[in-house]
Amino acid sequence: MNKERIILGIDPGTNIMGYGILKIINNKPSLEAMGVLQLNKYDDHYLRLKRIFERVVALIDQYHPDELAIEAPFFGKNVQSMLKLGRAQGVAMAAALSRDLPIFEYAPLKIKMSITGSGSASKEQVADMLRRLLKVPAEQMLPQLDATDGLAAALCHYFQSNKPLGEKKYTSWKDFVSKNKSKVK
Amino acid sequence: MNKERIILGIDPGTNIMGYGILKIINNKPSLEAMGVLQLNKYDDHYLRLKRIFERVVALIDQYHPDELAIEAPFFGKNVQSMLKLGRAQGVAMAAALSRDLPIFEYAPLKIKMSITGSGSASKEQVADMLRRLLKVPAEQMLPQLDATDGLAAALCHYFQSNKPLGEKKYTSWKDFVSKNKSKVK
Repeated sequence: MNKERIILGIDPGTNIMGYGILKIINNKPSLEAMGVLQLNKYDDHYLRLKRIFERVVALIDQYHPDELAIEAPFFGKNVQSMLKLGRAQGVAMAAALSRDLPIFEYAPLKIKMSITGSGSASKEQVADMLRRLLKVPAEQMLPQLDATDGLAAALCHYFQSNKPLGEKKYTSWKDFVSKNKSKVK
Repeated sequence: MNKERIILGIDPGTNIMGYGILKIINNKPSLEAMGVLQLNKYDDHYLRLKRIFERVVALIDQYHPDELAIEAPFFGKNVQSMLKLGRAQGVAMAAALSRDLPIFEYAPLKIKMSITGSGSASKEQVADMLRRLLKVPAEQMLPQLDATDGLAAALCHYFQSNKPLGEKKYTSWKDFVSKNKSKVK
Protein backbone atom coordinates (compact mmCIF):
# COMPACT_ATOMS: atom_id res chain seq x y z
CA MET A 1 0.00 0.00 0.00
CA ASN A 2 1.28 3.45 -0.84
CA LYS A 3 1.76 5.66 2.16
CA GLU A 4 0.89 9.20 1.27
CA ARG A 5 1.66 12.33 3.22
CA ILE A 6 0.93 15.91 2.24
CA ILE A 7 2.63 18.96 3.72
CA LEU A 8 1.46 22.52 3.18
CA GLY A 9 4.31 24.99 3.49
CA ILE A 10 3.73 28.71 3.71
CA ASP A 11 5.76 31.85 4.14
CA PRO A 12 3.24 34.42 5.33
CA GLY A 13 4.11 38.08 4.98
CA THR A 14 2.04 41.22 4.85
CA ASN A 15 3.01 42.00 1.24
CA ILE A 16 3.22 38.56 -0.29
CA MET A 17 2.51 35.01 0.85
CA GLY A 18 4.29 32.10 -0.79
CA TYR A 19 2.97 28.57 -0.50
CA GLY A 20 3.85 25.09 -1.66
CA ILE A 21 2.19 21.70 -1.45
CA LEU A 22 4.56 18.79 -1.03
CA LYS A 23 3.31 15.28 -1.65
CA ILE A 24 5.29 12.37 -0.26
CA ILE A 25 4.60 8.87 -1.50
CA ASN A 26 6.75 6.04 -0.22
CA ASN A 27 9.31 8.50 1.12
CA LYS A 28 9.63 10.26 -2.24
CA PRO A 29 8.72 13.96 -1.97
CA SER A 30 7.33 15.67 -5.06
CA LEU A 31 5.88 19.06 -5.90
CA GLU A 32 2.10 19.04 -5.99
CA ALA A 33 1.45 22.78 -6.30
CA MET A 34 3.00 26.13 -5.54
CA GLY A 35 1.96 29.73 -5.80
CA VAL A 36 1.89 33.20 -4.34
CA LEU A 37 -0.77 35.45 -2.93
CA GLN A 38 -0.09 39.07 -3.87
CA LEU A 39 -1.23 41.28 -1.01
CA ASN A 40 0.32 44.64 -1.80
CA LYS A 41 -2.51 45.43 -4.18
CA TYR A 42 -4.82 45.82 -1.17
CA ASP A 43 -4.48 49.01 0.83
CA ASP A 44 -6.62 47.73 3.67
CA HIS A 45 -4.69 45.84 6.34
CA TYR A 46 -7.70 43.72 7.35
CA LEU A 47 -8.45 42.80 3.75
CA ARG A 48 -4.90 41.46 3.48
CA LEU A 49 -5.40 39.37 6.61
CA LYS A 50 -8.74 38.15 5.30
CA ARG A 51 -7.16 37.09 1.99
CA ILE A 52 -4.44 35.13 3.83
CA PHE A 53 -7.03 33.35 5.98
CA GLU A 54 -9.23 32.53 2.99
CA ARG A 55 -6.37 31.28 0.83
CA VAL A 56 -4.94 29.02 3.54
CA VAL A 57 -8.40 27.58 4.27
CA ALA A 58 -8.92 27.05 0.50
CA LEU A 59 -5.54 25.30 0.14
CA ILE A 60 -6.33 23.01 3.07
CA ASP A 61 -9.76 22.16 1.67
CA GLN A 62 -8.34 21.51 -1.81
CA TYR A 63 -5.22 19.49 -0.96
CA HIS A 64 -6.06 18.06 2.48
CA PRO A 65 -2.56 18.39 3.92
CA ASP A 66 -1.59 16.46 7.06
CA GLU A 67 0.57 19.24 8.48
CA LEU A 68 1.34 22.92 8.10
CA ALA A 69 4.98 24.02 7.96
CA ILE A 70 5.47 27.74 8.33
CA GLU A 71 8.49 29.98 7.85
CA ALA A 72 8.62 32.14 10.95
CA PRO A 73 11.36 34.70 11.55
CA PHE A 74 11.91 35.34 15.24
CA PHE A 75 13.61 38.66 14.75
CA GLY A 76 12.58 41.74 12.88
CA LYS A 77 13.52 45.32 12.23
CA ASN A 78 11.22 46.77 14.87
CA VAL A 79 8.21 46.08 17.08
CA GLN A 80 5.81 47.50 14.48
CA SER A 81 6.90 45.13 11.73
CA MET A 82 6.89 42.20 14.15
CA LEU A 83 3.31 42.98 15.20
CA LYS A 84 2.26 43.01 11.53
CA LEU A 85 4.14 39.80 10.82
CA GLY A 86 2.62 38.21 13.92
CA ARG A 87 -0.85 39.08 12.66
CA ALA A 88 -0.14 37.57 9.24
CA GLN A 89 1.19 34.42 10.91
CA GLY A 90 -1.77 34.43 13.29
CA VAL A 91 -4.45 34.42 10.59
CA ALA A 92 -2.57 31.71 8.65
CA MET A 93 -2.30 29.65 11.85
CA ALA A 94 -5.99 30.24 12.62
CA ALA A 95 -6.84 28.75 9.22
CA ALA A 96 -4.80 25.64 10.06
CA LEU A 97 -6.15 25.42 13.62
CA SER A 98 -9.73 25.74 12.36
CA ARG A 99 -9.07 22.58 10.34
CA ASP A 100 -7.21 20.80 13.20
CA LEU A 101 -3.92 20.80 11.32
CA PRO A 102 -0.75 20.52 13.42
CA ILE A 103 1.64 23.46 12.93
CA PHE A 104 5.41 23.36 12.72
CA GLU A 105 7.47 26.50 12.41
CA TYR A 106 11.00 26.97 11.18
CA ALA A 107 13.30 29.99 11.20
CA PRO A 108 14.51 31.15 7.75
CA LEU A 109 18.10 30.17 8.59
CA LYS A 110 17.02 26.66 9.56
CA ILE A 111 15.11 26.26 6.28
CA LYS A 112 18.05 27.43 4.15
CA MET A 113 20.42 25.14 6.07
CA SER A 114 18.08 22.21 5.66
CA ILE A 115 17.61 22.67 1.91
CA THR A 116 21.04 23.90 0.76
CA GLY A 117 23.38 23.14 3.64
CA SER A 118 24.13 26.85 3.98
CA GLY A 119 22.36 29.39 6.17
CA SER A 120 23.42 32.21 3.87
CA ALA A 121 22.01 30.74 0.64
CA SER A 122 20.20 33.17 -1.68
CA LYS A 123 16.56 32.81 -2.74
CA GLU A 124 17.83 31.63 -6.15
CA GLN A 125 20.07 28.99 -4.59
CA VAL A 126 17.20 27.67 -2.48
CA ALA A 127 14.95 27.59 -5.58
CA ASP A 128 17.62 25.81 -7.60
CA MET A 129 18.12 23.17 -4.91
CA LEU A 130 14.37 22.66 -4.55
CA ARG A 131 14.14 22.25 -8.34
CA ARG A 132 16.83 19.58 -8.33
CA LEU A 133 15.62 17.76 -5.21
CA LEU A 134 12.04 17.64 -6.43
CA LYS A 135 12.92 17.28 -10.14
CA VAL A 136 10.86 20.26 -11.23
CA PRO A 137 11.47 21.70 -14.74
CA ALA A 138 13.24 25.08 -14.49
CA GLU A 139 10.56 26.85 -16.51
CA GLN A 140 7.98 25.80 -13.92
CA MET A 141 10.08 26.96 -11.00
CA LEU A 142 11.65 30.25 -11.94
CA PRO A 143 8.58 32.45 -12.52
CA GLN A 144 7.47 31.68 -8.99
CA LEU A 145 10.56 32.59 -7.04
CA ASP A 146 8.51 34.11 -4.24
CA ALA A 147 6.58 30.88 -3.82
CA THR A 148 9.71 28.86 -3.11
CA ASP A 149 9.98 29.96 0.52
CA GLY A 150 6.69 28.23 1.25
CA LEU A 151 7.74 25.08 -0.58
CA ALA A 152 11.14 25.19 1.16
CA ALA A 153 9.40 25.30 4.56
CA ALA A 154 7.41 22.19 3.59
CA LEU A 155 10.51 20.29 2.45
CA CYS A 156 12.47 21.41 5.51
CA HIS A 157 9.70 20.00 7.69
CA TYR A 158 9.76 16.75 5.75
CA PHE A 159 13.53 16.44 6.27
CA GLN A 160 13.25 17.29 9.96
CA SER A 161 10.42 14.88 10.66
CA ASN A 162 11.75 12.09 8.49
CA LYS A 163 15.26 11.64 9.80
CA PRO A 164 16.57 8.08 9.47
CA LEU A 165 15.86 5.96 12.53
CA GLY A 166 19.57 5.45 13.08
CA GLU A 167 20.19 9.14 13.53
CA LYS A 168 20.53 10.19 17.11
CA LYS A 169 18.30 12.86 18.53
CA TYR A 170 19.06 14.66 21.73
CA THR A 171 16.57 16.72 23.66
CA SER A 172 19.22 18.59 25.64
CA TRP A 173 22.90 18.72 26.45
CA LYS A 174 22.18 16.58 29.53
CA ASP A 175 20.51 14.04 27.26
CA PHE A 176 23.53 14.08 24.93
CA VAL A 177 25.93 13.55 27.81
CA SER A 178 23.91 10.67 29.24
CA LYS A 179 23.87 8.91 25.86
CA ASN A 180 27.50 9.64 24.95
CA LYS A 181 29.45 9.10 28.15
CA SER A 182 32.53 7.94 26.26
CA LYS A 183 32.68 11.14 24.20
CA VAL A 184 32.43 13.58 27.07
CA LYS A 185 35.49 13.92 29.21
CA MET B 1 -38.90 50.52 15.85
CA ASN B 2 -36.02 49.83 18.20
CA LYS B 3 -32.64 50.18 16.55
CA GLU B 4 -30.31 47.58 17.97
CA ARG B 5 -26.58 47.44 17.63
CA ILE B 6 -24.21 44.93 19.20
CA ILE B 7 -20.48 45.45 19.65
CA LEU B 8 -18.06 42.72 20.63
CA GLY B 9 -15.01 44.12 22.41
CA ILE B 10 -11.93 42.04 23.08
CA ASP B 11 -8.52 42.46 24.60
CA PRO B 12 -6.52 39.55 23.23
CA GLY B 13 -3.35 38.56 25.01
CA THR B 14 -1.36 35.38 25.12
CA ASN B 15 -2.07 34.77 28.82
CA ILE B 16 -5.60 36.02 29.14
CA MET B 17 -8.28 37.34 26.82
CA GLY B 18 -10.99 39.64 28.13
CA TYR B 19 -14.21 40.19 26.24
CA GLY B 20 -17.42 42.13 26.56
CA ILE B 21 -20.64 42.31 24.61
CA LEU B 22 -22.24 45.74 24.47
CA LYS B 23 -25.84 46.05 23.35
CA ILE B 24 -27.10 49.43 22.21
CA ILE B 25 -30.83 50.03 21.88
CA ASN B 26 -32.02 53.51 20.93
CA ASN B 27 -28.60 54.96 21.72
CA LYS B 28 -28.56 53.43 25.21
CA PRO B 29 -25.58 51.10 25.69
CA SER B 30 -25.92 48.24 28.17
CA LEU B 31 -23.87 45.25 29.22
CA GLU B 32 -25.00 42.04 27.56
CA ALA B 33 -22.17 39.74 28.64
CA MET B 34 -18.55 39.78 29.72
CA GLY B 35 -15.92 37.22 30.54
CA VAL B 36 -12.35 36.05 30.34
CA LEU B 37 -10.55 33.25 28.60
CA GLN B 38 -7.74 31.92 30.79
CA LEU B 39 -4.89 30.82 28.55
CA ASN B 40 -1.97 30.40 30.92
CA LYS B 41 -3.19 26.94 31.87
CA TYR B 42 -2.14 25.74 28.41
CA ASP B 43 1.56 25.23 27.83
CA ASP B 44 1.17 24.84 24.10
CA HIS B 45 1.33 28.10 22.18
CA TYR B 46 -0.85 26.81 19.31
CA LEU B 47 -3.47 25.50 21.70
CA ARG B 48 -3.72 29.00 23.17
CA LEU B 49 -4.19 30.47 19.69
CA LYS B 50 -6.78 27.80 18.89
CA ARG B 51 -8.74 28.61 22.06
CA ILE B 52 -8.76 32.33 21.19
CA PHE B 53 -10.03 31.58 17.67
CA GLU B 54 -12.70 29.19 18.90
CA ARG B 55 -13.94 31.51 21.65
CA VAL B 56 -14.21 34.55 19.36
CA VAL B 57 -16.06 32.48 16.74
CA ALA B 58 -18.38 31.14 19.48
CA LEU B 59 -19.07 34.67 20.81
CA ILE B 60 -19.88 35.89 17.30
CA ASP B 61 -22.19 32.96 16.65
CA GLN B 62 -23.92 33.41 20.00
CA TYR B 63 -24.38 37.19 20.12
CA HIS B 64 -24.25 38.17 16.43
CA PRO B 65 -22.32 41.40 16.94
CA ASP B 66 -22.25 44.01 14.18
CA GLU B 67 -18.64 45.02 14.81
CA LEU B 68 -15.50 43.92 16.59
CA ALA B 69 -13.60 46.46 18.69
CA ILE B 70 -10.16 45.33 19.74
CA GLU B 71 -7.63 46.72 22.18
CA ALA B 72 -4.36 46.82 20.29
CA PRO B 73 -1.15 48.17 21.81
CA PHE B 74 1.21 49.45 19.15
CA PHE B 75 4.27 49.27 21.31
CA GLY B 76 5.73 46.47 23.35
CA LYS B 77 8.71 45.46 25.40
CA ASN B 78 10.50 43.70 22.58
CA VAL B 79 10.09 42.11 19.15
CA GLN B 80 9.43 38.67 20.66
CA SER B 81 6.48 39.83 22.76
CA MET B 82 5.11 41.84 19.83
CA LEU B 83 5.23 38.79 17.56
CA LYS B 84 3.30 36.79 20.17
CA LEU B 85 0.79 39.58 20.66
CA GLY B 86 0.43 39.94 16.88
CA ARG B 87 -0.39 36.24 16.62
CA ALA B 88 -3.03 36.48 19.36
CA GLN B 89 -4.54 39.52 17.62
CA GLY B 90 -4.28 37.73 14.26
CA VAL B 91 -6.28 34.68 15.29
CA ALA B 92 -8.93 36.87 16.97
CA MET B 93 -9.12 38.97 13.80
CA ALA B 94 -9.32 35.83 11.64
CA ALA B 95 -12.36 34.76 13.65
CA ALA B 96 -14.03 38.12 12.95
CA LEU B 97 -12.96 38.15 9.29
CA SER B 98 -14.27 34.60 8.80
CA ARG B 99 -17.70 35.96 9.83
CA ASP B 100 -17.36 39.18 7.77
CA LEU B 101 -17.28 41.39 10.84
CA PRO B 102 -15.67 44.82 10.46
CA ILE B 103 -12.76 45.37 12.84
CA PHE B 104 -11.86 48.55 14.72
CA GLU B 105 -8.78 48.79 16.86
CA TYR B 106 -7.94 51.19 19.64
CA ALA B 107 -4.74 51.78 21.57
CA PRO B 108 -4.99 51.25 25.37
CA LEU B 109 -4.43 54.97 26.01
CA LYS B 110 -7.25 55.90 23.65
CA ILE B 111 -9.62 53.49 25.41
CA LYS B 112 -8.78 54.82 28.88
CA MET B 113 -9.16 58.39 27.65
CA SER B 114 -12.49 57.61 26.06
CA ILE B 115 -13.95 55.90 29.14
CA THR B 116 -12.47 57.88 32.02
CA GLY B 117 -11.13 61.05 30.45
CA SER B 118 -7.63 60.15 31.62
CA GLY B 119 -5.01 58.18 29.75
CA SER B 120 -3.37 57.13 33.00
CA ALA B 121 -6.48 55.63 34.62
CA SER B 122 -6.00 52.32 36.45
CA LYS B 123 -7.82 49.10 35.59
CA GLU B 124 -9.99 49.67 38.67
CA GLN B 125 -10.89 53.20 37.60
CA VAL B 126 -11.84 52.00 34.11
CA ALA B 127 -13.95 49.20 35.66
CA ASP B 128 -15.63 51.65 38.03
CA MET B 129 -16.48 54.05 35.22
CA LEU B 130 -17.82 51.21 33.05
CA ARG B 131 -19.95 50.08 35.98
CA ARG B 132 -21.42 53.54 36.39
CA LEU B 133 -21.88 54.25 32.68
CA LEU B 134 -23.55 50.92 32.04
CA LYS B 135 -25.31 50.72 35.43
CA VAL B 136 -23.88 47.34 36.31
CA PRO B 137 -24.10 46.17 39.94
CA ALA B 138 -20.64 46.22 41.56
CA GLU B 139 -20.83 42.57 42.58
CA GLN B 140 -21.26 41.63 38.91
CA MET B 141 -18.34 43.76 37.76
CA LEU B 142 -15.57 43.30 40.29
CA PRO B 143 -14.86 39.59 40.03
CA GLN B 144 -14.20 40.03 36.33
CA LEU B 145 -11.65 42.83 36.39
CA ASP B 146 -9.68 41.27 33.56
CA ALA B 147 -12.74 41.22 31.36
CA THR B 148 -13.24 44.96 31.59
CA ASP B 149 -10.57 45.79 28.99
CA GLY B 150 -12.63 44.01 26.35
CA LEU B 151 -15.82 45.74 27.42
CA ALA B 152 -13.98 49.08 27.56
CA ALA B 153 -12.82 48.59 23.94
CA ALA B 154 -16.45 48.01 22.91
CA LEU B 155 -17.71 51.11 24.72
CA CYS B 156 -14.80 53.19 23.38
CA HIS B 157 -15.79 52.13 19.86
CA TYR B 158 -19.40 53.05 20.54
CA PHE B 159 -18.36 56.52 21.74
CA GLN B 160 -16.05 57.02 18.76
CA SER B 161 -18.54 55.91 16.15
CA ASN B 162 -21.54 57.61 17.73
CA LYS B 163 -20.42 61.18 18.06
CA PRO B 164 -23.28 63.69 17.89
CA LEU B 165 -24.15 64.78 14.37
CA GLY B 166 -23.31 68.36 15.25
CA GLU B 167 -19.70 67.44 15.89
CA LYS B 168 -17.43 68.18 13.00
CA LYS B 169 -15.31 65.48 11.49
CA TYR B 170 -12.42 66.18 9.22
CA THR B 171 -10.70 63.62 7.05
CA SER B 172 -7.54 65.67 6.61
CA TRP B 173 -5.99 69.06 7.18
CA LYS B 174 -7.06 70.01 3.63
CA ASP B 175 -10.61 69.02 4.52
CA PHE B 176 -10.48 71.12 7.69
CA VAL B 177 -9.21 74.16 5.77
CA SER B 178 -11.88 73.84 3.09
CA LYS B 179 -14.63 73.72 5.73
CA ASN B 180 -13.21 76.43 7.97
CA LYS B 181 -11.98 79.13 5.60
CA SER B 182 -12.74 81.87 8.10
CA LYS B 183 -10.57 80.24 10.78
CA VAL B 184 -7.48 79.75 8.66
CA LYS B 185 -5.54 82.92 7.85
